[in-house]
Amino acid sequence: VQGPSAAAKLGALALVIRSAGTSDDRVAHTGALNYAIDAPRIPAFALSNPDADLLARRVSTDKQVRLRLKSTARELPATWSANVIGEIPGRERSEEIVLLGAHLDSWDLGHGALDDGAGVAIVIEAARLISRLERKPARTIRVVLFANEEFGLSGAREYAKHLGDEASRHVLAMEADVGQGPVWRIRSQVAPEALPAVAAMQEVLQPLNVELGSNDASGGADIGPLRTMGIPVLDLSLDASSYFDVHHTVNDTLLKVDPKILDQSVAAYAAAAYLAATKQGDFGRLTTAGE
Amino acid sequence: VQGPSAAAKLGALALVIRSAGTSDDRVAHTGALNYAIDAPRIPAFALSNPDADLLARRVSTDKQVRLRLKSTARELPATWSANVIGEIPGRERSEEIVLLGAHLDSWDLGHGALDDGAGVAIVIEAARLISRLERKPARTIRVVLFANEEFGLSGAREYAKHLGDEASRHVLAMEADVGQGPVWRIRSQVAPEALPAVAAMQEVLQPLNVELGSNDASGGADIGPLRTMGIPVLDLSLDASSYFDVHHTVNDTLLKVDPKILDQSVAAYAAAAYLAATKQGDFGRLTTAGE
Repeated sequence: VQGPSAAAKLGALALVIRSAGTSDDRVAHTGALNYAIDAPRIPAFALSNPDADLLARRVSTDKQVRLRLKSTARELPATWSANVIGEIPGRERSEEIVLLGAHLDSWDLGHGALDDGAGVAIVIEAARLISRLERKPARTIRVVLFANEEFGLSGAREYAKHLGDEASRHVLAMEADVGQGPVWRIRSQVAPEALPAVAAMQEVLQPLNVELGSNDASGGADIGPLRTMGIPVLDLSLDASSYFDVHHTVNDTLLKVDPKILDQSVAAYAAAAYLAATKQGDFGRLTTAGE
Repeated sequence: VQGPSAAAKLGALALVIRSAGTSDDRVAHTGALNYAIDAPRIPAFALSNPDADLLARRVSTDKQVRLRLKSTARELPATWSANVIGEIPGRERSEEIVLLGAHLDSWDLGHGALDDGAGVAIVIEAARLISRLERKPARTIRVVLFANEEFGLSGAREYAKHLGDEASRHVLAMEADVGQGPVWRIRSQVAPEALPAVAAMQEVLQPLNVELGSNDASGGADIGPLRTMGIPVLDLSLDASSYFDVHHTVNDTLLKVDPKILDQSVAAYAAAAYLAATKQGDFGRLTTAGE
């Protein structure tokens, strides 16, 4: 992230890094880049792991190694995009909101099937399943598909900024943004008195092989601004074993999605959202802003 | 192979095919191409499977689909290359030869780690293991690393063409050219009276989980010209389950090679070569040119 500016201050003309991903294919995960204000804006490149291995061996054995670099990357001006929001109105306490989030945009190299098409599919399908139940949950379930998660979280920040008195009526927020799953853990950041309710959720999720985690959940990148406002959050942790083989690379396409895995994730999100939206009493308020 | 010329005769300006490989990554296996003499030489392209899926969906839903194609492929003039040959002289019947083959060149897109770096490693290491034995085999073991397998088998054809009276002294030929393995089957094309010897080889290879196949082995592409001359051949069939995910693509790099798998293949090739070079009597002669 800081590498290009640090290198530029030392006189570098460009920076080349090893892929930030785990794939052994010839595709690179570029990582992300923030230019410092006080350094020349030099181009940065990422090499796939096999190519980085080759270069490392050349550097270790040859007197001189030359790389010819060509970047076609451009920074385009800002443009308009929008959060997309839908709701299942609550049966009794419709002014209270359980938020299910995901994000609409994808990283430049990726098509976004896993990041975050899978997350969008999970939260929409979870909400659809709930909408078809005869007995709707007491609270409103709000699905928020955030704009621009990847390039600065502006959708998430704008959402939080314009909440007004709705902020106090958000009882819980969760996001799906680590690929398709399966969900393997439920983790919370809620007021201590609400922890038994989280444990009860885990019991319901137990048949899906979801274990109980600690009370230090982040909620997800788009949920961050809500969490810092004191809104409790839940993580349904998605299995990321192979996520970094794919995400933010050209390989993030639909062929990587397994409908059976997605089904498990949808079931877990639907159950957790329903239980949260039906629970007697809320999840309290976070008094210290979590990480 | 024949597609571009067939399409050109129908007026096509170019041909685009789905990858001939099995990878779900954004890498294409181009297949191979032979231009007919009587058709315009149009360019041919291969799309990776995810990209082909995308295009197929577009074609099925859109009125008009346009592809902008740019080919940087060139056909360069022929150049010199050479077969590389080494021998372990036989202890008793050194004029008789058991041939272990692989090929040195790789497909244009691939680095050739599996095709056929792995094969070269298998036959060289098998020969090296045999060379370190106190009791050398009776016959000569000849390792032939063929030039130009990929672009017309000229190395194999030249080798066969210049055999002279050595042809009758080749008792058996085998090749490693389907990746790293493991070896899962031994298959022969030998005279019927030599079949018990092949079955005996399989018994030795049984602990490596090598099963016995039929008597219709091909020997491998470079061995073809020898087989049509009547020289018996053996296939140690290498597991190709994931071979077409990788071979002839940019992903054919060293990271795909598993030393443990290679070890099993080396053991099988070394044992089979030793047994063939030590066997009492030969493997007969092929009377009908096999497929």
